[in-house]
Amino acid sequence: MAKELKDLTKRSEDYSKWYNELVVKADLAEQSAVRGCMVIKPYGYAIWEKMQRQLDTMFKETGHQNAYFPLLIPKSFLCREAEHVEGFAKECAVVTHYRLKNDPDGNGVVVDPDAKLEEELIIRPTSETIIWNTYKNWITSYRDLPILCNQWANVLRWEMRTRMFLRTAEFLWQEGHTAHATREEAEAEARKMLEVYADFAEKFMAVPVVKGVKSANERFAGAIDTYTIEAMMQDGKALQSGTSHFLGQNFAKAFDVTFINKENKPEYVWATSWGVSTRLMGALIMTHSDDNGLVLPPHLAPIQVVIIPIYKNSEQIAEIDKAIEPIVNKLRALGISVKYDNADNRRPGFKFADYELKGVPVRLAIGARDLENGTVEVMRRDTLEKQIEPLEGIEEFVKNLLEEIQENIYKKALALRESKTRTVDTYDEFKKEIEKGGFILAHWDGTTETEEKIKEETKATIRCIPLDGDKTPGVCMVTGKPSAQRVIFARNY
Amino acid sequence: MAKELKDLTKRSEDYSKWYNELVVKADLAEQSAVRGCMVIKPYGYAIWEKMQRQLDTMFKETGHQNAYFPLLIPKSFLCREAEHVEGFAKECAVVTHYRLKNDPDGNGVVVDPDAKLEEELIIRPTSETIIWNTYKNWITSYRDLPILCNQWANVLRWEMRTRMFLRTAEFLWQEGHTAHATREEAEAEARKMLEVYADFAEKFMAVPVVKGVKSANERFAGAIDTYTIEAMMQDGKALQSGTSHFLGQNFAKAFDVTFINKENKPEYVWATSWGVSTRLMGALIMTHSDDNGLVLPPHLAPIQVVIIPIYKNSEQIAEIDKAIEPIVNKLRALGISVKYDNADNRRPGFKFADYELKGVPVRLAIGARDLENGTVEVMRRDTLEKQIEPLEGIEEFVKNLLEEIQENIYKKALALRESKTRTVDTYDEFKKEIEKGGFILAHWDGTTETEEKIKEETKATIRCIPLDGDKTPGVCMVTGKPSAQRVIFARNY
Repeated sequence: MAKELKDLTKRSEDYSKWYNELVVKADLAEQSAVRGCMVIKPYGYAIWEKMQRQLDTMFKETGHQNAYFPLLIPKSFLCREAEHVEGFAKECAVVTHYRLKNDPDGNGVVVDPDAKLEEELIIRPTSETIIWNTYKNWITSYRDLPILCNQWANVLRWEMRTRMFLRTAEFLWQEGHTAHATREEAEAEARKMLEVYADFAEKFMAVPVVKGVKSANERFAGAIDTYTIEAMMQDGKALQSGTSHFLGQNFAKAFDVTFINKENKPEYVWATSWGVSTRLMGALIMTHSDDNGLVLPPHLAPIQVVIIPIYKNSEQIAEIDKAIEPIVNKLRALGISVKYDNADNRRPGFKFADYELKGVPVRLAIGARDLENGTVEVMRRDTLEKQIEPLEGIEEFVKNLLEEIQENIYKKALALRESKTRTVDTYDEFKKEIEKGGFILAHWDGTTETEEKIKEETKATIRCIPLDGDKTPGVCMVTGKPSAQRVIFARNY
Repeated sequence: MAKELKDLTKRSEDYSKWYNELVVKADLAEQSAVRGCMVIKPYGYAIWEKMQRQLDTMFKETGHQNAYFPLLIPKSFLCREAEHVEGFAKECAVVTHYRLKNDPDGNGVVVDPDAKLEEELIIRPTSETIIWNTYKNWITSYRDLPILCNQWANVLRWEMRTRMFLRTAEFLWQEGHTAHATREEAEAEARKMLEVYADFAEKFMAVPVVKGVKSANERFAGAIDTYTIEAMMQDGKALQSGTSHFLGQNFAKAFDVTFINKENKPEYVWATSWGVSTRLMGALIMTHSDDNGLVLPPHLAPIQVVIIPIYKNSEQIAEIDKAIEPIVNKLRALGISVKYDNADNRRPGFKFADYELKGVPVRLAIGARDLENGTVEVMRRDTLEKQIEPLEGIEEFVKNLLEEIQENIYKKALALRESKTRTVDTYDEFKKEIEKGGFILAHWDGTTETEEKIKEETKATIRCIPLDGDKTPGVCMVTGKPSAQRVIFARNY
């Protein structure tokens, strides 16, 4: 492990390689035998579980319930909403048969041609179609609304280029699907869930995000408006971290879902959908980690504190064990997840490097002399600073330190983003600046044409039209036409 | 709803119809547009979530970690273990293509023949193969063992006859997959997880189960031993509710997974797998519910107590609201899930019927006169008994009542099972008795031949060879050959 750690590529050498190596070395995930699909290993999954628990709590606090809809979608459903099928048809895994059989020629097992489906089934790339086909039967009157459902599920999109967590063929996510009686209510819901995502990113992941709305070009296939939270990675590239869509009446029309409104007239139902995925793991890793490995925000770390004894003989370890036991209990009573690693088969130096690689926020090391002095060595993962603290009251010290680390890594990420966010007024300047990475605030005339020209010439996309901040109008840096406000350009994952 | 309730078929009329109707009327699940796949509705999913949380806690307490493995399995993997592919090939959904395209003839969207996979992918019916292919890279030495992983996932088996929760094409489950250095350790693990399942069934679901081992004929495809918990439904049929498999070295051999043991010699790894699924929902429903609807065990009920105000005017409801608020808070402080339903758009009688149908364990009803008298009407769902109790201290009363209900429905189910379990010595008697349903304890000679003869002639299968209870040897009721102990026969779901 100490060797493995030394082998970690430095961010400054090759950021992308550093990321790929870190995911594997920190035991988060690995490639599977199936193209584009990963195995999420226990340590990686434990972080995802903490994310899930917190998000699930926040969804329930905002009135949502979980449900479960089928994995497979009839091909014809996908085709009902024109933009939707256009957006997803090219990356669909298709089930065509429902049985294997022994090869009559004796070559093992083959697909049974007699078991061909009449209509092909698609593995869900997202569930709007199957869910709106279901909602049709749930909704008659305005009294049946709103419906506020979420599902935790796997989805599959046959991506050509994949990277663990950031873009995989199969991924885990949650998808909220809500149905409303009015346009206003649906729009408010889409905005509310954007706020939930932003809160989660900033308070739990310690990842600062810009809230905004997507340009027409970057909208979800079938949406009227797509809201997004955009984060900046350490290399200055943007990562779309969560989206919330106002779907208007598009899916209600496609699946003929109407309700009798308060005026006793039939009307199409208004919809939203919103989702975050295991991609958040990529955002978490790339925002905080360093050349020594992962840096995890205390609010999501599976192990928040590790305690490592340093000893020469069985007498010493017995004494340390005895002194540490009440500390472990007190930390747990404070709701802190702690691991006391007194395993005998690995040296302390090895353990230090391993827990650093795994991003454990706080490490306590205690030896025989510390015990005599009533002290303990405290190392914080974010700054790698060590200090000696009294054993007495160490629990409260650790508790406060965890909050300090949570705040510090957020501030650090925010400072980085601010240092890499610039305002640019001419297209020449833009072309120069975009090469340096980061977010560029520039005026744009609002047309897809201009957006695509910029993308083609600079590989930069409009990440979002920010909801907060400066709303001063100006003129498009490319065409000189009027612009309502500056938008954020960046290269992105 | 009151009307819908009246329409519920009685168990005595048609048990199977009663079940199907109840699943829909109690808002647990419904058929989807995809053959054999159901939609789990929010109320049904809330019960499943409570099951998941509790099981997950029990798995973690016994040292297991969660992970996630791919949904899709290369066809060739399935074929590596001969019995395994034999068991699952006939019910596999097969992905053959990864893209749709616009039909050149203008008929919407079709499968793109250019996007045919070189090797077909199977939607996992269970994950032994993909997981053991992964474990191969995780295991080198005995120091890497044991591996104790679980995953919560969806799986798909193309069943010909489906019933909601009991047998669906797609279902939700957990599958534990463990790897061990010795046969003894793996066998102990398989037995340990059987105990965890039995504990969960009895203490949380209030479903009494018989722990046993399956006959060769009923074993999991690829297992050496399959342990099972068998429950009896109210109609006397058996429901296999969870299984734990000792897999020997079968999958290690199929995927060439070896480790260097303590004697420095290479050896194949020993394995177990174990799972329970949304089928448990079927067991829960069919064990306790009655002609008025669901009866839920308090330990798994999403709403444990509902409080319904009875009032004539806004003054009365204001007073009741005020009196109930501190009671709700105190109940919540005791960890009890409570709903105060003062919605104005439904009459109390309607609410009563609805919560009865939904199986809420305790109902409190309070009117203006109760308030004057300082009393409340308490109804327990299991017996439908009503009584008047003082408002003062009602929280503790409810808390105790919930435990009493939990215990009572367990005892009731146990008494039913005992009354329907008989010992039989001759095959003639057996044929008569099996028609009456229930479990029949009889001697069997241990051969698949005899087992199949009995199944063919009576539709009864060997549910298990019980681990506990009478172990007296005897002679097979069919062949007269020696029998080590009585086994349990029943017709089953």
